[in-house]
Amino acid sequence: MSRLRVGCVGTGFIAGKHLAALASFDDVDVVAVADTDAERAAAVAASHEARAYTDGLDLLGAEDLDAVWLCVPPFAHGALEEAAVRRALPFFVEKPLAHDLATAERVAGSVEAAGLRTAVGYHWRHLDVVQRVRRLVEERPPLLFSGYWLDRTPPVPWWAHRGRSGGQLVEQTTHVFDLARLLVGEVTDVSTTHVPASGPHEQPDDAVPLASSVALRFASGAVGSVSSARVLPGRHRVGIQLVGDGYAVELDERAIVDHELRLTTATGVVSEQSLQDPIAAEDRAFLDAVAGNSDDVRCTYAEALRTHALAWAADQSSVRGG
Amino acid sequence: MSRLRVGCVGTGFIAGKHLAALASFDDVDVVAVADTDAERAAAVAASHEARAYTDGLDLLGAEDLDAVWLCVPPFAHGALEEAAVRRALPFFVEKPLAHDLATAERVAGSVEAAGLRTAVGYHWRHLDVVQRVRRLVEERPPLLFSGYWLDRTPPVPWWAHRGRSGGQLVEQTTHVFDLARLLVGEVTDVSTTHVPASGPHEQPDDAVPLASSVALRFASGAVGSVSSARVLPGRHRVGIQLVGDGYAVELDERAIVDHELRLTTATGVVSEQSLQDPIAAEDRAFLDAVAGNSDDVRCTYAEALRTHALAWAADQSSVRGG
Amino acid sequence: MSRLRVGCVGTGFIAGKHLAALASFDDVDVVAVADTDAERAAAVAASHEARAYTDGLDLLGAEDLDAVWLCVPPFAHGALEEAAVRRALPFFVEKPLAHDLATAERVAGSVEAAGLRTAVGYHWRHLDVVQRVRRLVEERPPLLFSGYWLDRTPPVPWWAHRGRSGGQLVEQTTHVFDLARLLVGEVTDVSTTHVPASGPHEQPDDAVPLASSVALRFASGAVGSVSSARVLPGRHRVGIQLVGDGYAVELDERAIVDHELRLTTATGVVSEQSLQDPIAAEDRAFLDAVAGNSDDVRCTYAEALRTHALAWAADQSSVRGG
Amino acid sequence: MSRLRVGCVGTGFIAGKHLAALASFDDVDVVAVADTDAERAAAVAASHEARAYTDGLDLLGAEDLDAVWLCVPPFAHGALEEAAVRRALPFFVEKPLAHDLATAERVAGSVEAAGLRTAVGYHWRHLDVVQRVRRLVEERPPLLFSGYWLDRTPPVPWWAHRGRSGGQLVEQTTHVFDLARLLVGEVTDVSTTHVPASGPHEQPDDAVPLASSVALRFASGAVGSVSSARVLPGRHRVGIQLVGDGYAVELDERAIVDHELRLTTATGVVSEQSLQDPIAAEDRAFLDAVAGNSDDVRCTYAEALRTHALAWAADQSSVRGG
Repeated sequence: MSRLRVGCVGTGFIAGKHLAALASFDDVDVVAVADTDAERAAAVAASHEARAYTDGLDLLGAEDLDAVWLCVPPFAHGALEEAAVRRALPFFVEKPLAHDLATAERVAGSVEAAGLRTAVGYHWRHLDVVQRVRRLVEERPPLLFSGYWLDRTPPVPWWAHRGRSGGQLVEQTTHVFDLARLLVGEVTDVSTTHVPASGPHEQPDDAVPLASSVALRFASGAVGSVSSARVLPGRHRVGIQLVGDGYAVELDERAIVDHELRLTTATGVVSEQSLQDPIAAEDRAFLDAVAGNSDDVRCTYAEALRTHALAWAADQSSVRGG
Repeated sequence: MSRLRVGCVGTGFIAGKHLAALASFDDVDVVAVADTDAERAAAVAASHEARAYTDGLDLLGAEDLDAVWLCVPPFAHGALEEAAVRRALPFFVEKPLAHDLATAERVAGSVEAAGLRTAVGYHWRHLDVVQRVRRLVEERPPLLFSGYWLDRTPPVPWWAHRGRSGGQLVEQTTHVFDLARLLVGEVTDVSTTHVPASGPHEQPDDAVPLASSVALRFASGAVGSVSSARVLPGRHRVGIQLVGDGYAVELDERAIVDHELRLTTATGVVSEQSLQDPIAAEDRAFLDAVAGNSDDVRCTYAEALRTHALAWAADQSSVRGG
Repeated sequence: MSRLRVGCVGTGFIAGKHLAALASFDDVDVVAVADTDAERAAAVAASHEARAYTDGLDLLGAEDLDAVWLCVPPFAHGALEEAAVRRALPFFVEKPLAHDLATAERVAGSVEAAGLRTAVGYHWRHLDVVQRVRRLVEERPPLLFSGYWLDRTPPVPWWAHRGRSGGQLVEQTTHVFDLARLLVGEVTDVSTTHVPASGPHEQPDDAVPLASSVALRFASGAVGSVSSARVLPGRHRVGIQLVGDGYAVELDERAIVDHELRLTTATGVVSEQSLQDPIAAEDRAFLDAVAGNSDDVRCTYAEALRTHALAWAADQSSVRGG
Repeated sequence: MSRLRVGCVGTGFIAGKHLAALASFDDVDVVAVADTDAERAAAVAASHEARAYTDGLDLLGAEDLDAVWLCVPPFAHGALEEAAVRRALPFFVEKPLAHDLATAERVAGSVEAAGLRTAVGYHWRHLDVVQRVRRLVEERPPLLFSGYWLDRTPPVPWWAHRGRSGGQLVEQTTHVFDLARLLVGEVTDVSTTHVPASGPHEQPDDAVPLASSVALRFASGAVGSVSSARVLPGRHRVGIQLVGDGYAVELDERAIVDHELRLTTATGVVSEQSLQDPIAAEDRAFLDAVAGNSDDVRCTYAEALRTHALAWAADQSSVRGG
């Protein structure tokens, strides 16, 4: 088994999850880490005996890697992916693809032209409980979809700025839109109403709405809605509900390694709490694909673009309530 | 204490609940019962030592009552209410007011002209747990509303015909619309997508949709959605969810005498299962109002008309999914 | 398929469940029903187009049956079973076998001497969720057992009299003792403390204790406890908990057709609500055995006697708390 | 407001909670920290700008303190407390008081002779939800008690040695015994069966049992049981259940800052998740008492000794199952 050399741009919450997973694999060496915060970059790099960079582009330019993880804020996407494409370096990128749609579309074009291997962190796709639902809905298509992202405002300075994060629908609720596409199929109509942030803002349109409600129609004929809010004291409810002929499914993410599936049918309710780690699973699948051992990547850049475009459309269609 | 003489038109499920409540009051005599099914009318009347009728209009014509309960199917409303108005007989009527809007508007006009005392069976309004939520939202208005009526198709022959029942939104989900108005305020925009019933129907437009998703905008600026389905093996979820600044509320009806309230704030979750009987409470309130003792009627005909009009608008705005 | 002729002695709650199950089978005719309350006997018999008796012994003497169900209060056992044995009539008897141990031991001797086919209503044994636990514990034996019967005092006049019902441990908690034997194995030591009923009783020793706590040691080395109480406003908790190396199991009976299994392991929690009808299942198994088609009777009289003796020993070992 | 100078001996899990609480108070300076692990002592001390010691006795000898926190393993108690007594230094000590009874009795004698102010970390006593239950049981005494500590084996080297930790009953389940005393009253009889640890142990009697079941009788006449196990993959259930006339209470600790109370009565179920921090509360209460501002210490050394003696008696009475 030849060893895989990987780097990671970004050292935030989700980067930490990826680095922990990568470090746990026998055949992987984390050789480089970048963060604009030099102190963080140094500390994280030290814990992996890796080199530290303050600019991801420098990392990409200097290191000889088998794959790179791009875990940067929404507004920081674009140049990094383009650099990886130019170097024919397979990349795993965290959602959202970007704070806007244009950047993601441009990168998608480059990736496709280069035939580059990619993966995107829609990690629910790597959960066994999600795959169980997928098999169920293949036989008995859902008629009604409900999705939720009811949470606090994440305590990072850029998040509450629509022009930086893309807004809650694009940055968080995108996971729910991805599940909607995976389990119910493509969406043909989307329309959103929102509650704008109030108070004295210099650029009120830049403030991420406090809450929003999205109406969906699917190509299959199913209908649905997605509710988002950022005004709770903590994560309250993140998940989906499906109703089909004779059944209901609820799927909730309580934490990244704590998912619950409940299936109700005429014979009763079956539920399952999963402590599976979807981050490790998606990282392993991408590494195996890079190494040419297998191909279980469940969300490529091209596939993720469709989800990103849906979340973007939901945000753009938004009109104020009241 | 003078005794109150009451009658009841209809002997179905909810009529049975009202008759049980009325029979439990010391100051009430149930003196007459009507049902188009003569055998049922006789059996129910016998158990109350009351007279039996097969036509509610005959009952109204023959009996000297202090109040009458009208618990008939949606399509059977109109003439009964008009007859009660002509006799200046206070009436309690079950939801929905009618299978359509025109009938209810006509009755509302007559009731108002006559100044007649009425009450409508939006029984959630008589629950202490609902009043607790009401006090909460007066201080901290909701930003996001979600409502649900996920159930089986009721096993009565008229229910699945839109032209008879009015459809699920008008017949069942109307309780959810009533809570939306009570707790979030008036709705300014409503639009619905639905999944039509499939299969060989002679009059497909008459079949109640299998599922529907309603988008709402409120005068307060809040936004929301309502999900309904009739394809489950039994009652799955009937209730609402509210999100406001720093809190979330869930309120569910598991059975008519089994409601659950959950309130999540920064200090944790408080929940309460209530075994209060809202049917007995609304009946007692109406009787006390009729007797002139107090006025705690929480939903008059005029108030109910606004809820009915909202449910009707939701159903009328409905377009097919897909 | 030849038809099976059956009778039922007793028309109480559990007799009603058995009669409903028997009536649902295509190959069974309920031909006779007995109850000491002549009116009840007549009403129930009429609904099955069966003959009514006020004395079960008369029923056994007059009818030509393939099997009989004995669903009488604890104190009424003995003569009926002996009569069935004399007539070589297979019988299904509800728990408890009797209000005392001597009667059950005497009947067991007669049944064994006659080689008669019997079944006893420890219905949990016919639940799939219980069989799942059984397979689990065969591989990984439990170390710790906890059982519960926390309920109201049943509203029948004989129940609160120890000399009539046998007491809560013998009459209700016996199901928990049966599960303990089935899933953990035989018990070698049992000792109980109880809270006696207070207040002015003529025969205080005849009053069923308000609560009791039973300590158990098993032949396997496992240890455990059983908690019972009759002072709740309704059924609060009926079920068991098992702990073994690396797992915990909870199994609860919310209603006779509503059981919940929860299994916790290192990978998370799996739970299942079962709406299986164990009464119909045990009745069908007994009928199939009587007809010679198969033998899936899961609790014979001899097997039930061991459970009854354990419950009896728990009650007899009881000393007052405080 | 004069400032309070405090030290802490021990830097483990619970010491960390106390240090975080102490550091959060405006009027407290953490001036010294001790741990036998010099590196840990230095790191923790540095984060509080405090002096580091590797021997708690040295800390007590060198520092001029208003109070000290003693958060050491069970076997390390005795000399520290005696040193504090000699210096008339008020101390807060974590449970258990010691790995045995003799040490705790000796310290209790010294504390009493000196009239020293003390507090012990039975932190449940500082939870509002526990006080709510206390008020309830004062009016309606419990009849039946059940307690649980179903958990993994804590990953510290001394824990699984009875001669070092005192065993699970003394080290963990002591919280449950404390609640039993607080809410039901003193225990008059205690007897335990256990499942010994199997496998090749040099000193098998030193191995903490895998599971145990304790039977309790209370002076009030109530009865009960306590179940403990250390074979689960993680914390499974830690808490108590009380049954009294017409009610049941469940109280669970999911984490130190996550408790749930459920109260079932005839009117339904009321539950409350509390995110109150009982560690901060008990620390604040002790500091206020030390400063002479108020006295809300809920568990003194003398009071804790009674709980410790009960847990010790439960462990000593233990006989093997099977």
